[in-house]
This record gives sequence, C-alpha cells and structure tokens, in this order.
Amino acid sequence: MDELIRAVLRFRDEREWRQFHNPKDLAISIALEAAELLERFQWKTPAEVAIALQDEANRRRVGEEIADVLILLISLADAVGLDLVEGARAKRHENARKYPVERARGNARKYHELE
Amino acid sequence: MDELIRAVLRFRDEREWRQFHNPKDLAISIALEAAELLERFQWKTPAEVAIALQDEANRRRVGEEIADVLILLISLADAVGLDLVEGARAKRHENARKYPVERARGNARKYHELE
Amino acid sequence: MDELIRAVLRFRDEREWRQFHNPKDLAISIALEAAELLERFQWKTPAEVAIALQDEANRRRVGEEIADVLILLISLADAVGLDLVEGARAKRHENARKYPVERARGNARKYHELE
Amino acid sequence: MDELIRAVLRFRDEREWRQFHNPKDLAISIALEAAELLERFQWKTPAEVAIALQDEANRRRVGEEIADVLILLISLADAVGLDLVEGARAKRHENARKYPVERARGNARKYHELE
Repeated sequence: MDELIRAVLRFRDEREWRQFHNPKDLAISIALEAAELLERFQWKTPAEVAIALQDEANRRRVGEEIADVLILLISLADAVGLDLVEGARAKRHENARKYPVERARGNARKYHELE
Repeated sequence: MDELIRAVLRFRDEREWRQFHNPKDLAISIALEAAELLERFQWKTPAEVAIALQDEANRRRVGEEIADVLILLISLADAVGLDLVEGARAKRHENARKYPVERARGNARKYHELE
Repeated sequence: MDELIRAVLRFRDEREWRQFHNPKDLAISIALEAAELLERFQWKTPAEVAIALQDEANRRRVGEEIADVLILLISLADAVGLDLVEGARAKRHENARKYPVERARGNARKYHELE
Repeated sequence: MDELIRAVLRFRDEREWRQFHNPKDLAISIALEAAELLERFQWKTPAEVAIALQDEANRRRVGEEIADVLILLISLADAVGLDLVEGARAKRHENARKYPVERARGNARKYHELE
C-alpha cells in the first residue's frame, strides 16, 4: 500500500496535476466515481448481481471502478495532509466501540438504534 | 494496509455482518459515504475550504469520512473477490498509458481529448 | 407547478439566498439530496422496500427527500436560465425517439444496445 | 407540469417498463443522474462555470441532465404513490417555518445553526 500511495502521488506530480487537485473537486470526483461503481449494479437483483460477477470481464470492470475511488482517496488524503491508512485504523477502532460484538452480532441496525 | 484489511474483515466477521454485505448495497453505501465526504465542502469557495482545513476538528472530520469510504471499499473488494491494492496498481499502470507525461503535463483534459 | 416554481424562487429571494446559489454548489446539493433519498432504501431487499413503503411515516419521509431534490432542480434551472418543464418535455421527446415502443417494450436495455 | 407527468408515465407504460421501476433502483438512477449533472461542473471554478454556461451547447447539456433527474423523480413519486408537486409544496411550507425570513436573510447557515 505504501508503494501504491507513493506511485499515485508520483503519477500526479510527474503530470503537474497537483494544481488541479483542490480538495473540493477531489471530493466531487470521488462522488462521481462512486456513482460509476454503483452503476455496475443498477437494475439488477442481488441474484443477477451474483451471476454478473461470475463473468470475469464484469468483475474486472467493478475492480477498475473500485480502483478509481481508491486512487482518488489517496489523492485527497494527501491534499488535506492526512494519513489514509492511519485514519482508517482510527475509524475502525471507533466503530468497534460503537458496535460492540455482543450487541451488533447478526444485527444490521445503526449504532444509535442498537440499545 | 494488509493489517488494516485483515482488521476490517475481522470486524465484519465477528459481528456476522457478511450476510448483509451484498455487493449492490455496499456500492450504495460507498456512494452515500462519498456524499457525506462531499458535504464537508459544500457552499465553500476553494479559499474557504483551505481555511476550514486549517481547523483541526474539520480536518479530523474529513479524515473520518475518507476512512468510511476506504473501509467500505475494502469490504466490497472482499465481497466480490478482488485484491484492492493489486487492482489499484493495475489501474494506475493503465492511467500511465492513457496519460503519457509529455502530453498530460499541466493539462487537466480527459485522455480522449488529449490528442 | 408554475405556482410551485414561483413560490420556490420567492422563498429564495425573500431570504436573499440567490448570492449563494451558484450552479456548481446547487449541483452538489442535488447530488447530496439524491444520496439522502437513496439512503431510505439502503440495506433493504425489494420486498422489504415494499413493506416499508406501506408505513405512512416512511412514505412521507421518502416524499420529503423527493421534494428536496425537486426544489433544488427548480433553483438550478433558474440559476442557469433554463425552463425546467420545457427542458423535461424536450428530453422526453428525445427519449421517445431513442426508445421506440416496438423495440423497447418490456426491455430494460440501454438504447445503444437495443438494435 | 400535469401534462409532463402524464406524458412521462405514458412513455413508461407504452414500453411496459413499470415492472423494472422498483423504488430502490429508481432512487439509484436519480443518484446516478445527479452525478452526471454534477460532472458538468467538475474541475471548474465558479468563474469558469459562468463562462461555460454562456455557451449554448453547454447549457443545453446541463438542461438535459436536469431533465433526466426530473423525469426520474416523476417516475419514483408515481411508483411510491406520492403527488410530486403537492409534496414539494408541503416541503416548501416546512422550509418557510424552519427558515424565517428575518433570521435567514443573507445567511447560508443550516436551520439548526440559525439561533
């Protein structure tokens, strides 16, 4: 991952794209790429999604959309001076606190509805 | 990152949430979290964004939204059987092909408009 | 509808909000409200959605999110100087051309896949 | 508007598309079309947006994306049995209550921050 982050930022800097990478437009881009990812599942029942994902070309395309979002997250984290992996680790710890195993097990409710 | 991925999946499995993690709803969640991230920048000019990000509490909140998206990307990649980091690496290589340094330098146009 | 459009614009002008209503931030707002609308259906199967919509309070909340999107569409159309209803009418005519009844009947495919 | 709503629903029924129009997928479609609308403004400063919108072709494309969202809102309101215009009217009244003129004038803050 460290290597990926370095590669993504080097890619940006070699093309002198940092000037375009203001946080607001990066956040817009993330929302737009998330929409393209979601588009892959539109108008499909869960069963149809499962079948579609057995097709290697479909899975590859889903993978490419996931990658687009990840690359933009790396860019945005850098643009606002945050450590992407460290931030996710902290968030996961907070989630562990909000969703204790014994209460959240097999339960899809939001934390404020858990008690 | 490997450790983060393992922790995210262990968190899910301890709560027996895999049953809820169908790819379509995970993709919806990613779009919704991306919207929450974008909300942090709404109604702000680029200058106002820069000022807001100097505030530690604001930056931390942006970091939490970024983390939410990353954690869901990890979950979706696992649900469809894809390697998140490997996929991003492949995509970055493809981007390097589509945006050659000499043509893309300082240029925000899309690859199909580059020449 | 004409009355609604006038009421929405009067609401905006009485509060002197036109200064904030630049098209880019209105488009962001539409995307964010669309996400809140989608959130109402998250983690639900089609059958669970149907049940949830029989609950009057749930339906009212969906209606409020739909209304939020419509009000913002009215504001954006005005901000860019477009006639909302006329534009939708023109688009519908174009759709009728792209999706001829005899070929599109009972068929969810996109127009470029119809032939 | 009444005429537009009738035309949109007739368009759907002539193609026997009602079977595909479950509320969840319509809400996904609205989010995706809202993303396409937002894409028109991506990577542009407010000043660049203003210039782009003086171009007739650009404005027409923005109008088409707005129309796509409106047509889907009409379809979703029908699918869940709600009156689109009536719902927006009710929401506007609620907004008038949440944002009293004297407190909200020239003020972009959210209602829960107003006092």
